Amino acid sequence: MTYLTNFATLMNSVIITLPDGAQREYPSGSTPMDVALSISEGLARNVLAAKVNDTTVDASTPLIENCKLALLTWNDADGKQTYWHSSAHLLAEALEALYPGVKLGIGPPIQYGFYYDVDFGDAKFTDADFEKLESKMRELAKTNSSFVRKEISKADAVSYFESKGDPYKLDLLKDLEDGSITFYEQGNFTDLCRGPHIPHTGHIKSIKVLSTAGAYWRGDEKNKQLTRIYAITFPKKSELDAHLEMLEEAKKRDHRKLGKELEIYTFDDDVGPGLPLWLPNGGAMIEALESYAKKVEREGGYERVKSPHIARESMYLKSGHLPYYKDSMYPPMEIDGVNYYLKAMNCPHHHKIFAATPKSYRDLPIRLAEYGTCYRYEQSGELFGLMRVRSLQMNDAHIYCTEAQFEEEFQNVNALYLKHFEKFGIEKYVMRFSKHDPARLGEKYIDMPELWIKTEAMVRKVLDKMGVNYVEVEDEAAFYGPKIDIQVYSAIGREFTLATNQVDFAQAERFDLYFINEKNEKERPIIIHRAPLSTHERFIGFLLEHYAGRLPVWLAPKQVIVLPISDKYAAYGDEVVKFLKKHDIRASIDHRSEKAGKKIRDAEVSKTPYMLIVGEKEAEAKSVSVRMHGGTDLGLMELQQFADRIIDEAKL
Amino acid sequence: MTYLTNFATLMNSVIITLPDGAQREYPSGSTPMDVALSISEGLARNVLAAKVNDTTVDASTPLIENCKLALLTWNDADGKQTYWHSSAHLLAEALEALYPGVKLGIGPPIQYGFYYDVDFGDAKFTDADFEKLESKMRELAKTNSSFVRKEISKADAVSYFESKGDPYKLDLLKDLEDGSITFYEQGNFTDLCRGPHIPHTGHIKSIKVLSTAGAYWRGDEKNKQLTRIYAITFPKKSELDAHLEMLEEAKKRDHRKLGKELEIYTFDDDVGPGLPLWLPNGGAMIEALESYAKKVEREGGYERVKSPHIARESMYLKSGHLPYYKDSMYPPMEIDGVNYYLKAMNCPHHHKIFAATPKSYRDLPIRLAEYGTCYRYEQSGELFGLMRVRSLQMNDAHIYCTEAQFEEEFQNVNALYLKHFEKFGIEKYVMRFSKHDPARLGEKYIDMPELWIKTEAMVRKVLDKMGVNYVEVEDEAAFYGPKIDIQVYSAIGREFTLATNQVDFAQAERFDLYFINEKNEKERPIIIHRAPLSTHERFIGFLLEHYAGRLPVWLAPKQVIVLPISDKYAAYGDEVVKFLKKHDIRASIDHRSEKAGKKIRDAEVSKTPYMLIVGEKEAEAKSVSVRMHGGTDLGLMELQQFADRIIDEAKL
Repeated sequence: MTYLTNFATLMNSVIITLPDGAQREYPSGSTPMDVALSISEGLARNVLAAKVNDTTVDASTPLIENCKLALLTWNDADGKQTYWHSSAHLLAEALEALYPGVKLGIGPPIQYGFYYDVDFGDAKFTDADFEKLESKMRELAKTNSSFVRKEISKADAVSYFESKGDPYKLDLLKDLEDGSITFYEQGNFTDLCRGPHIPHTGHIKSIKVLSTAGAYWRGDEKNKQLTRIYAITFPKKSELDAHLEMLEEAKKRDHRKLGKELEIYTFDDDVGPGLPLWLPNGGAMIEALESYAKKVEREGGYERVKSPHIARESMYLKSGHLPYYKDSMYPPMEIDGVNYYLKAMNCPHHHKIFAATPKSYRDLPIRLAEYGTCYRYEQSGELFGLMRVRSLQMNDAHIYCTEAQFEEEFQNVNALYLKHFEKFGIEKYVMRFSKHDPARLGEKYIDMPELWIKTEAMVRKVLDKMGVNYVEVEDEAAFYGPKIDIQVYSAIGREFTLATNQVDFAQAERFDLYFINEKNEKERPIIIHRAPLSTHERFIGFLLEHYAGRLPVWLAPKQVIVLPISDKYAAYGDEVVKFLKKHDIRASIDHRSEKAGKKIRDAEVSKTPYMLIVGEKEAEAKSVSVRMHGGTDLGLMELQQFADRIIDEAKL
Repeated sequence: MTYLTNFATLMNSVIITLPDGAQREYPSGSTPMDVALSISEGLARNVLAAKVNDTTVDASTPLIENCKLALLTWNDADGKQTYWHSSAHLLAEALEALYPGVKLGIGPPIQYGFYYDVDFGDAKFTDADFEKLESKMRELAKTNSSFVRKEISKADAVSYFESKGDPYKLDLLKDLEDGSITFYEQGNFTDLCRGPHIPHTGHIKSIKVLSTAGAYWRGDEKNKQLTRIYAITFPKKSELDAHLEMLEEAKKRDHRKLGKELEIYTFDDDVGPGLPLWLPNGGAMIEALESYAKKVEREGGYERVKSPHIARESMYLKSGHLPYYKDSMYPPMEIDGVNYYLKAMNCPHHHKIFAATPKSYRDLPIRLAEYGTCYRYEQSGELFGLMRVRSLQMNDAHIYCTEAQFEEEFQNVNALYLKHFEKFGIEKYVMRFSKHDPARLGEKYIDMPELWIKTEAMVRKVLDKMGVNYVEVEDEAAFYGPKIDIQVYSAIGREFTLATNQVDFAQAERFDLYFINEKNEKERPIIIHRAPLSTHERFIGFLLEHYAGRLPVWLAPKQVIVLPISDKYAAYGDEVVKFLKKHDIRASIDHRSEKAGKKIRDAEVSKTPYMLIVGEKEAEAKSVSVRMHGGTDLGLMELQQFADRIIDEAKL
């Protein structure tokens, strides 16, 4: 503690450390809003909530101990979340006003906006009612009603909702302990809620009710199906407009729609939900991605291994996945009296491969890579196109290195990420660097304090040195080491969490992995888990949206389509296809007896990057008329000239 | 029936059709041996058994109906099998003479030789006793005792073995029906046996008892463990010598031994038996094989698809694999109340991919390829290295074509096999063309008589036209079409059944697969199943033996090893490795502080095709001294010159 801190404690005041490190003294009991006001009135007007020592709280929370404080506005992710959470309360208030007797479930914020699960009883709520609801919300927002927090005894809370007749809130109350229960009130509405909330409803300006869906109470099919109302709010109309435009664009780019149109993948009832079958066009994308991954990983000194998709129970007991991760795994298959599980992750298999032959420090680092397919159980209601599936083909690798090698290895992994971002034109990304909490060593985190400090410092050093865009997050590391979650944004600004990059001090111990060091002693390697290209499922889903299906040549399943202008030139067209295929170019031909215009239109729909129109002129000159997807006309090109162009463009 | 046949029936004689198509008349009741004697005494001396209408019988069997007849000698596979079966009886006779009271289990012929399962009671039988046994067998063989067949009632058979006190034969008798039981006697030995046998023991000249192993009675671990005695016999000593030499060579080339030495694969208790983990060297071989397969398949117009490793029960009920194939599949996993199975074959998944989008005759043929991993249950006692495993990565593809396209497609598939044989230096192979039996249409074979006849004719035409080495086998087709089993011989002459190539008329119906034909009608495609490169497991196992671990450059996991003659040249060595890696050459370096001689010896053991020795001279001239595995010295080469050589050699 500094001198200032000691002094403040004596004087019954608190020392607030702001994010820039500045320390200020306030009377004990001051609120974040008081702090904001002391800085500027403009700031105070924009404060939505506050972060006190990494916990988000109301801006009206009294500060009675020295703490770190961040004032949250619309520009902070947690500020937005609080804003949308409060908007959900506003929506509920409007619903109660419009539909007296409506029963309410839960109403959390989500990635974009919020929802509320509602039991309308006998009343109907349809798309036609959206505007009425928005208008009531706007009316209530204008009252500038404050969100007021109230601690309440369990008995009083139960009695409140009993008299109101709301079975869902009563069901939620069952799981809560007396003494921990809070209500939030605004205007005429009271909700069972942990908070925090924004100061008042006046912040909520632009409101859009987006859609409804059915949702079982507590996600359980045995319960009643409620109406889930999705909505979003913004402080400015221009932001809402931009968001709606993004949604419109996202709809056009929906990977499920494009996946079907471009014949990338399909689901089949006899195969099962969440288990995509990759059609030839999807197969071609997978091949292209794997070729690319293998190339950069070969250059990065990775070696490829191959492991089965099942293992005995003892493997997952050893890794610790069983019993903790059991719900996410497929049920066991008993063979010869032993339980086998489908693998939900490749790590244990790779550890076994590492352990299979003796290792010396001279052999390290060892980088084992595999596009391994894992199987994870997701509830059928959670499945979503390629984004939430049950089979995952993972761009996996595990790096086994010494402490001395860690920094360089970690830097190389990060460089790989940056290389991928460039390759795929990903302009915006964030790396969330999740660290341990020293107070929870031996409990939430493996008890190796020095290694945590040293590794986190190395991680930070590398991130800083490379100038990557990252945020540090306290107390969110994995049990066995710090991790980095990589979030990328598609071309239309939608966020995707693609991959996790983890440092691991624990598995080497569990699997008794070691190498013989320079002193001829056994030493445990540090393990880095990484999967920068995510899974084929998630990444291809992302790419379809990102490129709106107009895949770059190297990734496009069909790179070239030859369009003979009449049957007379079909033979020459075949010759062109044959020539291109010889150069490993994915070319096909449209042999239908359709007019050239129709063929071009259909080729546009298929989003094939190049159309080669062939007729008399082209056949005579052994050339092709080249038209790019989108309409750009490149004119007449000799066959070899065109092939060279594609080969160059498709280079990995 | 021909005139001759009619006449023969009247005259109480039989018409025998010999393999060359010649017909001869014999008195009814003549035996194959009589037929042999009528041809030549020399032939008769060599006849071991006979094939009458595709059933192997004793040469002494009376022929009482017109039939096809083939006389079997040592040169026929079935002749050898009969010979070794009779040798097993001889071994049993010798055992009873040497170990009175010994109890006998079963004694069948196997691929090379035969075994007998024996309960020695309290007696010991060790390697030291092999010679004594061989000598007793030789002594008994010289008596030229005839093998005499005897039909016996079940009661008499039971009473015989009861008085002899042989519980195993009594156990076998339980499953046999009265009226179907036969004994065979030779010398002092009587066995419960279906036969057939060779005429007499005098044919058995060269005898070798090879090894013993434990074997549970009826393969069931709950039963008593018997001693399985393996032995082999030949008509000539030179043949035995050649066989023993082959065995010796096979031992050196044992894929399990080489797989361990070259660090290709491993098994791990926590993963499970029969589930190989591929180490980096195995991973490199898999990558090389897949690159090669993908290249030739791309050239062949195949498209790559990808399917999950599981599917719902309904899929396998539709395909017909369930319930018939259930014992070979892993047990089901219940998810959301539905049973899922690990796939034991890729076909149903590919059929679903074919069905996912509408197909026109213009789209056909469609060739869907996938290195799909299948899982099959094999009893743990049956597992053997990479040869009998539970996970199989299959070089699979399914071709969907019209009847008109079938011939060309089938020819292309065969051409692919021949291409592979050449690539892998496989000089000897046999294709077993298994056909249907018209009498069993609608029972053993799908009832489409015309398609059977037409397809088999097309298959034969293609085989003849291509001049491939094949044999036709009656009544061994698959249910849904003719098939071709491909047997190849390794460099030391051991036979491996690698792959099956099947024509399929049935699955298109079951999966309702169709295309729209020229007449705008739905039509079923013919399906060809093919997997010429077998599974990675079996094929890599074969290749390790075939090449004795000295893999050709394109397949070798490590293509080049750089050997600095002292630490002084380590840096230049690293430079060489870097240069080669840039050219995608799999190069590594031996950085140990060992003498050059030791490094060369170790590199020889690792069977790396090229060693590059670098010292002062090489570092100065930016070159390498090239030594091939086995010792050939290529002298000094410039780096680029050497790289070009490897690149050329490694071309797919």
